[in-house]
Amino acid sequence: MTTQGSPARGNNLDPWYHHYADRTSGLAASEVRALFAVASRPEVVSLAGGMPYVSALPPELVTAAMERAMTDHGPTALQYGSGQGSPALREQILEVMALEGISGSVDDVVVTTGSQHALELVAKLFLDPGDVVIAEGPSYVTALVVFRSFQAEVAHVAMDDLGMIPQSLRETIARLREQGRRLKFLYTIPSFQNPAGVTLSWERRMEILEIARENDILVVEDNPYGLLYFDAPPPQAMRSVDDEGVIYLGTFSKTLAPGLRVGWALAPHAIREKLVLANEAAVLSPSSFTQTVISQYLAVADWKAQIDTFRGVYRERRDAMLAALGERLPGLEWTVPTGGFYVWLTLPENLDSKAMLPRAVKELVAYTPGTAFYGDGGGRNKMRLSFCYPSPEFIREGIRRLANVIDGELELLGEFSQTGPLQVRRERGVMTPPANIG
Amino acid sequence: MTTQGSPARGNNLDPWYHHYADRTSGLAASEVRALFAVASRPEVVSLAGGMPYVSALPPELVTAAMERAMTDHGPTALQYGSGQGSPALREQILEVMALEGISGSVDDVVVTTGSQHALELVAKLFLDPGDVVIAEGPSYVTALVVFRSFQAEVAHVAMDDLGMIPQSLRETIARLREQGRRLKFLYTIPSFQNPAGVTLSWERRMEILEIARENDILVVEDNPYGLLYFDAPPPQAMRSVDDEGVIYLGTFSKTLAPGLRVGWALAPHAIREKLVLANEAAVLSPSSFTQTVISQYLAVADWKAQIDTFRGVYRERRDAMLAALGERLPGLEWTVPTGGFYVWLTLPENLDSKAMLPRAVKELVAYTPGTAFYGDGGGRNKMRLSFCYPSPEFIREGIRRLANVIDGELELLGEFSQTGPLQVRRERGVMTPPANIG
Repeated sequence: MTTQGSPARGNNLDPWYHHYADRTSGLAASEVRALFAVASRPEVVSLAGGMPYVSALPPELVTAAMERAMTDHGPTALQYGSGQGSPALREQILEVMALEGISGSVDDVVVTTGSQHALELVAKLFLDPGDVVIAEGPSYVTALVVFRSFQAEVAHVAMDDLGMIPQSLRETIARLREQGRRLKFLYTIPSFQNPAGVTLSWERRMEILEIARENDILVVEDNPYGLLYFDAPPPQAMRSVDDEGVIYLGTFSKTLAPGLRVGWALAPHAIREKLVLANEAAVLSPSSFTQTVISQYLAVADWKAQIDTFRGVYRERRDAMLAALGERLPGLEWTVPTGGFYVWLTLPENLDSKAMLPRAVKELVAYTPGTAFYGDGGGRNKMRLSFCYPSPEFIREGIRRLANVIDGELELLGEFSQTGPLQVRRERGVMTPPANIG
Repeated sequence: MTTQGSPARGNNLDPWYHHYADRTSGLAASEVRALFAVASRPEVVSLAGGMPYVSALPPELVTAAMERAMTDHGPTALQYGSGQGSPALREQILEVMALEGISGSVDDVVVTTGSQHALELVAKLFLDPGDVVIAEGPSYVTALVVFRSFQAEVAHVAMDDLGMIPQSLRETIARLREQGRRLKFLYTIPSFQNPAGVTLSWERRMEILEIARENDILVVEDNPYGLLYFDAPPPQAMRSVDDEGVIYLGTFSKTLAPGLRVGWALAPHAIREKLVLANEAAVLSPSSFTQTVISQYLAVADWKAQIDTFRGVYRERRDAMLAALGERLPGLEWTVPTGGFYVWLTLPENLDSKAMLPRAVKELVAYTPGTAFYGDGGGRNKMRLSFCYPSPEFIREGIRRLANVIDGELELLGEFSQTGPLQVRRERGVMTPPANIG
């Protein structure tokens, strides 16, 4: 990494190759990213992406908010703002969080460029090279990318249908402590987890907070989907009962529109101060324009009714996916989400979802291979199926195509002749985590 | 930094104190930041901030662009987009850059959340702890904050009225090489520099590029103000003659509106690929919404005429400031900007602009102390005066108040009785840099 020892410029495909920071070695294109190009072809049914169905948002609601933003707040909306975000919007964010049992101070909210940027800022504040982040296995792809980009490693904790398993968390912490590793925080998506689709029970939320407290581990609670429940609300946020040990991340990307790039963090006070400084260094201030549009939207539109609309859209798509899976792939196992965007499907042990993907794309269906959601190559025979974006009809067609691909793979492997048709095994199954680091 | 050795939670004002990454030690509130609170009081004439005068932008131009964005591109504008930015906007950005002599490929443009975020991403890609960034002395506050936040040090190079002095750059490089330091890049604002207000001559641009090539040093050319010239355009961008050795940063913050938070980097191809990955990790994709609004604005509005309008506004304010300085502070020295937002004022040697600031605020005028623009405490008797935001009348009043404050300080120090009135010294003066690091 010294400039002194670097080859002459132009001797290499990238003349700046020897100038990059060490941390860039962890910066690689995610498997999901490569899929975006494929999935954008109109003939492919993509069950791969996590794009919300923004067409369920009446455009006139956004247009009205934009017009009010410009008419009533034009010079503010066009100008630089506070590095912490607009005070008016932060007040409204408190109302949104109250729906999940959270009470906090407007002083402790930091508006960010999507909750993704809150995650990046938290990682920048906490992660030194070699540090460890504990996360569910599987976990959100781009969280793993962020942690790696700051040279941290991820230790996965096993989940079952009730979410992260407390005993597995205890064992993971004990093992890492024994190895002398520095544990920086526990990253969790307790409600309608990405990619597993499961929800952490209330009892486990309490138990996991207790484990975190005992072990002096900060909890980063990422909750993009909590308001998108299909029947009953999920248990209240972990932050609702712990304001000193939890950084809570929220976003308008799923309840309004991701194109606005507005999310937030609610953090313990001292951490919040550092988050604001990091936010200012990174972007000076989040967009006043999109903050003002959202603030006007929340002030004028019936935003709770709009969230109900989204719930209905996603519930119908979830139902379509579960029905199609039951019909087309009765021998397999999958999670049954009660909200959010995703189903987690387990293939027979001897199938490799990543190796199978090119065949699936040839059959005009795409999904995200399970390995994308692990920091260590786990998830080989798993896949994430998204029901958020395609219509129910496309979902049914996508699952039909997927079933053909899987059947074809199994035939190739001679499975059917040896074992007969697969049986439904849909009892609560532990999602075995891969071997953890260390 | 280990969790093992940390004190029990609650024993400290910040229970997470021992969890932060090493890099947070470089993350402190900038002096400019503390001023924002002060400067926002209406009775204070603030010559401190760098806010563009967005009221010179007719709001109906933005409203029309917004409406077209929603009507013609609603679902795209509300959705996640490419991590590299919208292809349509990237094409238009090529047209904007062509005005400064730059030809590039749409493939090598990366749209970012303001050019500030491009700077953050470049720093994240290149800076390991202990690396050195070379920059003009003085240089842009929040660039220094970003470099420090990745644990890099800044080595300043002296400037005069023609910008960075090539010989000083050569000497700085030689000294740092001798010390075995890793030089990662040269950060420069060649046109209407922030805070010095000076512009790098064409001959020096060529010479500095040559020095960078000889020494295998990447150039980061930050150009927020280049189109805001008052008489003749500044020399063409350094990127116009070097597409392999320069990362060019541009922004719509000064030619349109900072509240949209849209800027860009034009980078050598291999670096561009990494910038996109870093951008995706940080924010998934820049705001589709604000990108679409800008794309529509550029497609429909007479954006070049609007830049002319901004030029006229800032020219009038620059003139007001220079006239007031000539009238009220004839004994001092200042730079004469031919574009941009800033004048750099030198106080008598024995005055300390930071120490004087509370008195200035009491007299209802604010500025930015010179030390904010150095990584090492330099600039003690300097200050940045911004003419971008206040009206000409307020600028005149602000300079009147500032002159009173300075006169008062000098009287306190007994200067007048000892040396008589100060003489105008406005020949080209070298801005002596402080002792460089190492």
